[in-house]
Parts: sequence; structure tokens; C-alpha cells
Amino acid sequence: MASSLISRQLALSLQKNLRLSAPGCRYVSKAAPKTQVEFDYDRPSMKTEVPGPRSQELTKQLGEIQNVGAVNFFCNYEESRGNYLVDVDGNRMLDIYTQISSIPIGYNHPALLKLMADPSNLSTFVNRPALGILPPENFPDKLSESLLSVAPSGMTRVQTMACGSCSNENAYKAMFIWYRNKERGHTTPSEEDVSSCMINQGPGCPDLSILSFMGGFHGRTMGCLATTHSKAIHKLDVPSFDWPIAPFPRLQYPLEEFTRENAQEEARCLEEVEDLIVKWRQKGNPVAGIVIEPIQAEGGDNHASPGFFKSLRNIARKHGCAFHVDEVQTGGGSTGKFWAHEHWGMDDPADIVSFSKKLLTGGYYHRQELQADKPYRIFNTWMGDPSKNLFLAEVLNVIRRENLLEEVTRSGKALLNGLYELQAQYPGLLSRARGQGTFCAIDICDDATRNSILLKARDKGVLLGGCGDRSIRFRPSLVFKDYHVHMFLNIFNDVLAQHK
Amino acid sequence: MASSLISRQLALSLQKNLRLSAPGCRYVSKAAPKTQVEFDYDRPSMKTEVPGPRSQELTKQLGEIQNVGAVNFFCNYEESRGNYLVDVDGNRMLDIYTQISSIPIGYNHPALLKLMADPSNLSTFVNRPALGILPPENFPDKLSESLLSVAPSGMTRVQTMACGSCSNENAYKAMFIWYRNKERGHTTPSEEDVSSCMINQGPGCPDLSILSFMGGFHGRTMGCLATTHSKAIHKLDVPSFDWPIAPFPRLQYPLEEFTRENAQEEARCLEEVEDLIVKWRQKGNPVAGIVIEPIQAEGGDNHASPGFFKSLRNIARKHGCAFHVDEVQTGGGSTGKFWAHEHWGMDDPADIVSFSKKLLTGGYYHRQELQADKPYRIFNTWMGDPSKNLFLAEVLNVIRRENLLEEVTRSGKALLNGLYELQAQYPGLLSRARGQGTFCAIDICDDATRNSILLKARDKGVLLGGCGDRSIRFRPSLVFKDYHVHMFLNIFNDVLAQHK
Repeated sequence: MASSLISRQLALSLQKNLRLSAPGCRYVSKAAPKTQVEFDYDRPSMKTEVPGPRSQELTKQLGEIQNVGAVNFFCNYEESRGNYLVDVDGNRMLDIYTQISSIPIGYNHPALLKLMADPSNLSTFVNRPALGILPPENFPDKLSESLLSVAPSGMTRVQTMACGSCSNENAYKAMFIWYRNKERGHTTPSEEDVSSCMINQGPGCPDLSILSFMGGFHGRTMGCLATTHSKAIHKLDVPSFDWPIAPFPRLQYPLEEFTRENAQEEARCLEEVEDLIVKWRQKGNPVAGIVIEPIQAEGGDNHASPGFFKSLRNIARKHGCAFHVDEVQTGGGSTGKFWAHEHWGMDDPADIVSFSKKLLTGGYYHRQELQADKPYRIFNTWMGDPSKNLFLAEVLNVIRRENLLEEVTRSGKALLNGLYELQAQYPGLLSRARGQGTFCAIDICDDATRNSILLKARDKGVLLGGCGDRSIRFRPSLVFKDYHVHMFLNIFNDVLAQHK
Repeated sequence: MASSLISRQLALSLQKNLRLSAPGCRYVSKAAPKTQVEFDYDRPSMKTEVPGPRSQELTKQLGEIQNVGAVNFFCNYEESRGNYLVDVDGNRMLDIYTQISSIPIGYNHPALLKLMADPSNLSTFVNRPALGILPPENFPDKLSESLLSVAPSGMTRVQTMACGSCSNENAYKAMFIWYRNKERGHTTPSEEDVSSCMINQGPGCPDLSILSFMGGFHGRTMGCLATTHSKAIHKLDVPSFDWPIAPFPRLQYPLEEFTRENAQEEARCLEEVEDLIVKWRQKGNPVAGIVIEPIQAEGGDNHASPGFFKSLRNIARKHGCAFHVDEVQTGGGSTGKFWAHEHWGMDDPADIVSFSKKLLTGGYYHRQELQADKPYRIFNTWMGDPSKNLFLAEVLNVIRRENLLEEVTRSGKALLNGLYELQAQYPGLLSRARGQGTFCAIDICDDATRNSILLKARDKGVLLGGCGDRSIRFRPSLVFKDYHVHMFLNIFNDVLAQHK
């Protein structure tokens, strides 16, 4: 991770190019001449407050059908392009949230539209197969072209699923199955296993646990939810499992200025992990697997060092627990590498890596040993959706052709530098600027101010999302260039100036 | 339900038209002149054994990537049409399994292909939104056109989800939230609720349960799996919840010949349900909801009477439990009504009805009271997929335009009559023919014979699926006509003759 955190020196030298002077002044970028992205718009264009009258009308209409408390506004996806999301009132916003980090290469990318125009692809959309029993002819090839072409180190096997929660649920099941077979020493369940599991009892349904981290988010179905600890509203009133929860390091930023303190904090958390593994084994509820995000996203963009993850991987190995890296939000390129765990520089980073969002399909990679020993143990009707694999193969082509990971690294540096600068300018308002690639965040003084800033930025044509208690997270698509960064920084600067 | 189970008299009179004589002889249907279905093929056409050489080659290739133990063969979806699935070796099979009951109107239906050709639909496929926060302009209209136009009685609210398991997981959460708010008498959680739920403990994560039925199937994520009791292989080695499991009636068929015995059996099960509710309340783990399928599908096509479900609904109401009808497999028309629960003839059949498969999108309907009181309680990134709503609206148009529910009722009668006849002919081999619409099943003398019959039928060009210990389930699409029934019965008869 350290490699992508630009030094303060570099930040300072870049800053000169930005000619940033007084609060409220405009960034004028010399460093980043605009390159043409044919399908993108030029700039935001706002016609009404957001939500505008048409959005309000539709929200009322949808409110008759669903809870609309989370609806921001209604969108015109036909008119949206590249980095710009257009709403139903004709407002065009620079989108730095991208459908909760799930749009990989911007809206209506020509490569994806072209794919839709190819008649040989039609039947993939119209006839959704039960992939586990009746896959289409091109399924192995499409998996090879798409998911396997970006497989994490040490992994040649992948299972697709419909969404992030399903991916993690099935990854947990794979870890439980692996762990129990390891305990048995073979793969044949006893008669007691078979009969007891039918009524939810041990030994067939064993007392096994997944160790997760405070602040982590792994989804909202009941298995996932037992490992999610980011916000109470996600968990309240839902029965759960008595599984161990370790502290995630609370580091100080910029990381390179607090090396010693952060190392201490990480050591404290690792020690706690080992204690919990021992304690839960003693309780008769051993830890079958550890699940962790490379950067805690929903929980507030909390980072940890490559050394922390290496040690954690070793602790898992030492105690015979599987190690599951959840890349649902971090995967797909926005950290500047395709997988965030690549920043750790390990040949054998994990036993399982799950994904969804920018990958367009859910699923998980796993090492050979984590494959269930029999069919129908990891199974459901659809097991993903081949039409999403089709899109993903094309997205990966675009990423390679347009060197988007390099672009992300470049834009990410500009973004983080800009955030450092703003933070220096507004010390009472901003703190803890942090990030990897464009996967950046900054803290606001309090929750209410954060929310007010999000709304004001939106009315000025920039769509952002929050995370944690008082952070703003930046989640642009991979076609977010240097000049988008500077456009954003100018607008953000204006918004902040109003809050001073 | 009784209304759609044709009497033995009718069966006998229809039988005359079928000119069924000796085992091995061909059905020659006079009753069902073939109507033209332009996009359908004429008949099965087999070139190789199944799986053929190309399928075997691809299975080997996919085996390097995934567990392929459940793969039947590889398909050529482009060449598949209507009721016929074509494989990669050029075999064309009459499909009476339809991707585990999930293809509503056959393969490559012209209406769905036409939808794909409309440029105004492209952006719906290319830009998958986070529906809970940034829905597309046409979202309320598409919901009204599609899901709400077939809403169960008493329900005007619907939440889409990606798949069946996610639908049930979220339905359970909705029931837990509703139950706890009812217990509180208001919707404001205590500080203790909020802090304890973050660490998976009560009272925030309460001891609450869902009552399910032995033989039921509700999905494979961990919440769903705790209510699934159809096969051990689904549940083995996965931790579960201590939730109550009631017996599902084991009825004798044909239902109308065993009225008294079946009523006794249903009364026994209902009594057990009430006992379990009381017992679990006393254990401090009260039943927040009851979940049940109108016909247990994976568990072996087990039926129960409308009276049983009415009583169960009343028991739920009496004890303050929500009543959740899982129509993931039964929904979408194959019982001759759009929802299987319509056969019960109730105005207020359930608090929650979940769906997926033939509906193309997952989700659940619910009564107003079951709506979560705050946003982000029932939430995830995608919350379904609007491109599936687009297809569903068109599927519903076709169902209405072509009177497919009537067709299903007609074909279903022919199918069940044929099964009764075959059962009379092969008493040692077949038993317990049963069904509603084309949602039919029959038992085979033992598991091994069942599996052998499935394979032999496939090699003769008929694709079928098993369920339960030794049943064959029939799950054709809604465009399965009378003449398809007779074609199937002829082939099935040949297969059975070989097993005599």
C-alpha cells in the first residue's frame, strides 16, 4: 500500500502546479491537459435543486410501492454518459459515487453498447440458464476471458453468484465445509451428521464461527450480517450468531507520518485476533475462517498496512483458519491495482477472494482446497448471470486497452494531493485525507456538516457518498481522469468555503 | 386446489381419446390437434447420447475452473426455441425442467427478442443502477406494469431483489423488524438495542425464530438454510439457528380418494405447529414468522389442501406471527393460476409472498405493516435489476395475450390424466401421481430407478428433473401445450416399458 501513498514532498511539488492560493479560489490545472473522451460530457450542468420537481413526483409515486427513504433522485440513464449522471430534471452531475462504487467504466460506454448491438449476444440476455446444471457453450471461455484473466495470485478457480451477499454467504459455506472435512480427516459425513443437520442441530450443523472486524461490512443476508459491524441500522432486530469480532486498526493519517503509532495499533489488533481465535476454540465454537476487507469501505475507509495483512494471513494459517479477503467494494481497479490486496505484494494473499459491484457479477475465487467436495453443496438456481460475464469481458478489454489502472493511479495521486491541500486549508473542517488510487476519503468535523456538504456539492453538480460516521468517500469510475479531479476540487473548494 | 385436480371419471373419459392400449404402445392424441407456435420446433431430435462428445469436452474444460458434478450438459441457447432446449452436440430435447422451473415462456420468445431490438431499452442493460438510491425514471411504471399487475390479494407493495435466497433473507428480516417493533410498541430502538446489535448480541440481535416445515426449501444462504429441510447435502457442515420445524402433511394421492385420512394428517401437523410456537415462546425464542411453500417443490412435490393453509394462516394470526408464503418455485403461472396460493381462495392469503425464477427477478410482496420503518434496513447495492423487470413486463403481456394460464390448466389436466394412466399401467413402477396445472410429479419405486428413467428419457429427447427422494417433477414452461403433453407421454411410456 505504501507505494501508492504519495509522499508529502510530491504533494507539495504538485501543489505548485495547481496554483492553489486562497480559500474559495479556483484550481487551475496546468498539470492535466484534458484528453478527449468521446462519450463523456464536458462539465456538470444544473437546472434545479436536487431532487428537482420531477424526481419529487416520482419519489411520491414510488413511495406508494416501496420505502423511498434512501432515494436520492431519479435518473435518466439514457442521457447519462461517462462520468456524468443525468437526472430526470435535466441536471447533469459529475458522479464520484457511481451507484455505490459499482459502475466500472462510466455510463453508456460505447464498448458496452456495441456488445448489445451484436445479434449473437441476444440469446445470452433472453435465456437465463441454471449455470450449475446447463451452462451455455461459451461459459468456460467467457470465464477465462473475463474473471480468470484477472484471477488473484494462486487462484485458478472461480464461482459466480448473483450479488455480493450471495458471494460471501457461499464463501463462508465453502470455508465451513473445508474446515469440517479437515476436522474429519475425510469427506464422508457420519450418519449422525446427516440426520442432525436436517433439524439444524450439531454435529451436522456444527458450532463454527467466522471471525470478522469491527467496522467491517460484508453484506446483509443473515450469515453475512453476522460479520457486518459498520452501522446499527443494518443489524438491528435480526437474530445473529455468537461469532468473534476483532478490532480493526484505527490508524493515523497520512500513514507515513505515524509509522510507529500505527505499527503499535496494528500489533494490538493482531494480538486480539489471536486471543479471540483461542477463546472461541475453547468455547467450542472454533473459527473456521477470517473475513476482512483490504480497506474497510462502508465502515469509514479504514486502511491497514501490507504488514498487517501479511501477519493476519500468517495467523490464519497458524491456527488452521481459512483467510477470506472481501473485495466486493475494493476490487475492480479503483485502488490503482485490479485487486486492492495486490498492494500487499504477496504470492499467496488469501484462500478466498470475493467480488461483486464493478465486476458486474458476484462471485468468489478460491484456492483448490476450498472447493466443496461434492456437487450441490455450493449451488442455487442461477449461480450468477452469463450476460454479466459478457459485459465484464468487455470492461476488462477497455481497462487494458485504455491503461485505466495507470490512469486511476495518476488521477488518484491528483485527488489525494488535492485533498491534502484542502485539509491544510480547512483544518477545522477536514481531516484524515487518505486513499489508494482514486479509492479516497476524507473526514468532516461532524456528521451533520458532512451531510450538509454532500447536499451542497450535489446542488453544485458533484455526486458524492458518505461512509462511516463522518467520512466522505470518493468512488469514481475508472474513466475519471486528472481533469475530472481538478474540476471536482474546484467545486468542492467552493462548497467548503461556504462551510468555513 | 381441489378444483384443478381432475376427477378420476374425467381421467377415464379422456383416456379413451388417447387410445392407450398396451405398454410400449404410442399415445395417439385425437383430443389435441396441434396449434402452430411459430418459434417452437416440431419434435425432439437426438444425434448422440447425452452428454455428447462436445459437452464432455466442455465439462472437462469447466472442471478446471469449477466443480462440475452437477453439470448435465452444455447448451446452445441460440438454437433453442420454445419448449426445446438444444445442446452443443446438436441434440434437441423437449424441456420439461426449464432451468429448474425458471423459463416462463420458452426459449428465445420473439416478444423478448423484440424487446432487445428496441434501442430505448439498451441503457437499462448497460447501466445497472443502485435501485434503492438512484432508480431510473421508468422504475415505478415498470413495477406497476410488471410486478404490481399480478400482486397477490391484499398487497400493493413490492421489493425487488436479485435472487430467491436474497428475497427470502430480506423477507425474514422484514418479519423480524415488524415483530420487534410490535413487541416494543413503537419503532425507536433503545440504546442497549443499538449497542448490543453491533456485537451480534441481544437485545439488539434478539432471539427470534422462523418456523418452517420438514421437506421445505427456501434457499441456501444462512438464514434461508435454517428453514430449508429437503436434503442433507444442502445443510451439512453449515452452522444454523435453533428454530422450530413442523411436519408438513404427508398426504395420500389422488387427494379426493383419501379425504378423511388426509384431513387427519393435516390436523396432526397443524396441532404440532401450535405446540412448537408455544414451546419456542417458552424457550425465549419466539416465532416471528412462519414460512411455507404452497407446494413443497424441492422436497418432493408435497401438496396440502386449501383448508390446511387457511388454518395455518389463522394460527399465525392467533399467535402474532407473520405468515410468509414462498412462491419462488410455484409462482408465475404453472399451477394454472398466477400464484399457487390463489387456489386457496383467500382475500388475505399472507403477510409476505416471495418470488423469483419465472418472475425473472427475485423479490417479495408484503402487506403495508411489514414495511421496514426506516430506510437502509432492507437494502443492498443493486436491489434487483431493472432489465429483468423489462423482460417480466413483456412476459406478462404474452401470458395475457395468449391466455397461457388457461392453456396451462388444459395441458395440466392432460398431463395429470396421462400420469394417472401410466400409473395404472405400471403399478410396481409408478405411484402418487399428483399436480396442479402442469406443476405435476410422480413417484418412482426407488431412487436408482428414478435416476435411470431420467437419463433414459433424456436420451430419447425429454429433459426432466427429480425432486425429493424418488419423485420426478414436471416443470414445463407456460407454452407447453396439449400436443407437447402427448408427445411427452408417448416417449415416457416407451421409457417405462423398458423398465417394467
